[in-house]
Amino acid sequence: MCVMGKHTVYFKNKPRITGTFSVAGPKEGQSNFGKHIHKILSDDKFGEDTFEKAECKMLSLAIENAIKNAGKTHADIDALVSGDLLNQIISSSFAAREFDFPYIGVYNACSTLSEAFSIAATLVDGGYMKNVVTGTGSHFATAERQYRYPLELGCTRPPQSQWTVTGAGAAVVSDHGDFPKIASATFGKVVDFGVTDANNMGAAMAPAAADTLKTLFKETQTLPEDYDLILTGDLGALGSRLVKKLMIEYDFDISKNHADCGEMIYNINEEEYQGGSGAGCSAVVFNSYIYKKMLKKEINKMILVATGALLSTVSTQQGESIPCVAHAVVLES
Amino acid sequence: MCVMGKHTVYFKNKPRITGTFSVAGPKEGQSNFGKHIHKILSDDKFGEDTFEKAECKMLSLAIENAIKNAGKTHADIDALVSGDLLNQIISSSFAAREFDFPYIGVYNACSTLSEAFSIAATLVDGGYMKNVVTGTGSHFATAERQYRYPLELGCTRPPQSQWTVTGAGAAVVSDHGDFPKIASATFGKVVDFGVTDANNMGAAMAPAAADTLKTLFKETQTLPEDYDLILTGDLGALGSRLVKKLMIEYDFDISKNHADCGEMIYNINEEEYQGGSGAGCSAVVFNSYIYKKMLKKEINKMILVATGALLSTVSTQQGESIPCVAHAVVLES
Repeated sequence: MCVMGKHTVYFKNKPRITGTFSVAGPKEGQSNFGKHIHKILSDDKFGEDTFEKAECKMLSLAIENAIKNAGKTHADIDALVSGDLLNQIISSSFAAREFDFPYIGVYNACSTLSEAFSIAATLVDGGYMKNVVTGTGSHFATAERQYRYPLELGCTRPPQSQWTVTGAGAAVVSDHGDFPKIASATFGKVVDFGVTDANNMGAAMAPAAADTLKTLFKETQTLPEDYDLILTGDLGALGSRLVKKLMIEYDFDISKNHADCGEMIYNINEEEYQGGSGAGCSAVVFNSYIYKKMLKKEINKMILVATGALLSTVSTQQGESIPCVAHAVVLES
Repeated sequence: MCVMGKHTVYFKNKPRITGTFSVAGPKEGQSNFGKHIHKILSDDKFGEDTFEKAECKMLSLAIENAIKNAGKTHADIDALVSGDLLNQIISSSFAAREFDFPYIGVYNACSTLSEAFSIAATLVDGGYMKNVVTGTGSHFATAERQYRYPLELGCTRPPQSQWTVTGAGAAVVSDHGDFPKIASATFGKVVDFGVTDANNMGAAMAPAAADTLKTLFKETQTLPEDYDLILTGDLGALGSRLVKKLMIEYDFDISKNHADCGEMIYNINEEEYQGGSGAGCSAVVFNSYIYKKMLKKEINKMILVATGALLSTVSTQQGESIPCVAHAVVLES
């Protein structure tokens, strides 16, 4: 039985994810995961003169092709729900300029993927819209220069760091069809364990993921073993260990069916240390490999819980710790 | 008769705005409008050591007191929908940390107010949540140093410029009660007329407001005279003249019942030129004076159409024009 919970909303009509698309940079293409991604760029500037314009172009491409893969036209789409990591989410806003449908900008850092799915599913499930396209992405070079250092400085990366994925993903959420369904959304609250190291996102975000997962299990009266997969967004190797440990403290053992997009996307070597990160990380992994596995019914029931670190360079400079949030959606084949 | 439109969603249960709160800086308090604002700060740092922390504190205060004014407790609130102008919407995210309910971050620049109302109304109308609090704000000093120049430089302001409002507003959207209602939301698409002057927001945003208003009138089969008030967010004096002119071109005359929050909030003098701007501008004006007029039924039916300029310093530096968006909600007493 489903019990109404404070953070979880249930979708009676279970909106469908009718089509997806993913695009990523050359580095992402070279890893074992690369073969699952719809399109790999040969040039991480994607023919543009700046990395920011390349990021925007990847997002536009993903949106365009997700609509195509869903068998829809622009005229079928009622809105775009999109966000990204750049200041004022310019990748999303400039991508939205390419399309003639309404634009709803969202931002919860790297949990934007599951936030966008939750809002899109609400709009479709409630009968307000028929087809909503969601999109998000990130770019290693734009994130480095905005959040950390200019690439030209060649700064040494600390071992707890992750590598921002150059990539974008989009998905169409529709009111019907024989496709993977969004059954519920659990909206996360802000959790801040006092981590101040802007290079250690995994440690900062793990408590938010654990909080939302705990809430989801309690409110939906389910257990980790009820799911084929519990997929976190970009906790990386360290963050993944932490979330599993925290969940044990909450009396839920997710170790048997947990995976993290950040751990999957690279052949981890010294450069990436803890794995991939960024809004593009979960967007690329979910909208390619995972979605295809759901289509083939190799995954029948899963939780997608993307986590976001809600810092900015200004908050870090002003000595603030890193508040984090995680939104979760339950998906069924 | 209501006809289903592509951009407009109708709320069958018409969610109520059950309580609001507004707070603003000393400058805003000194204008004729000041007496309508719930709380005026005596110090625009609000006792904090940075302007950013002051902005966040204003937003927290507005959220806290909107909940109180709605006669609710924290336990009644199902989610916060909030966004602001700072990079990575840190005012909203850090304000959200103060509360124990879920946080949905949104960003459409200065149209965040009407975007947040639209999403909150969808969540409540669809029966997914009972009470959602919306919040947004801005601060003159944080906006200047993030978007333009450090205040210490004392740069001369061009005559087409506006003055970012130091203020925040919040409102609770609930499923029942004898309060002003949200009848529908018209989501705007991105409109870019090629304006590249980051000091001329009114001119950049007016076409987006006109596009959404035109869509609203056509889809809802209503006319400007059906509304007591058509309230734009922060077009300022120049932008307001432009939107009225554009609407005439679209065969709708809004000149008789149009007002703009940016034109209302200051006793315009040389400093503010075209008037107020910023996410805090419409948030303060709507959540104080306008809401009180709706409560007293001096306004019975109105459109709130807040406009956002979706630029960042990076997009401007890369030679981009300014894409804009406007979301509208129809409110009824």
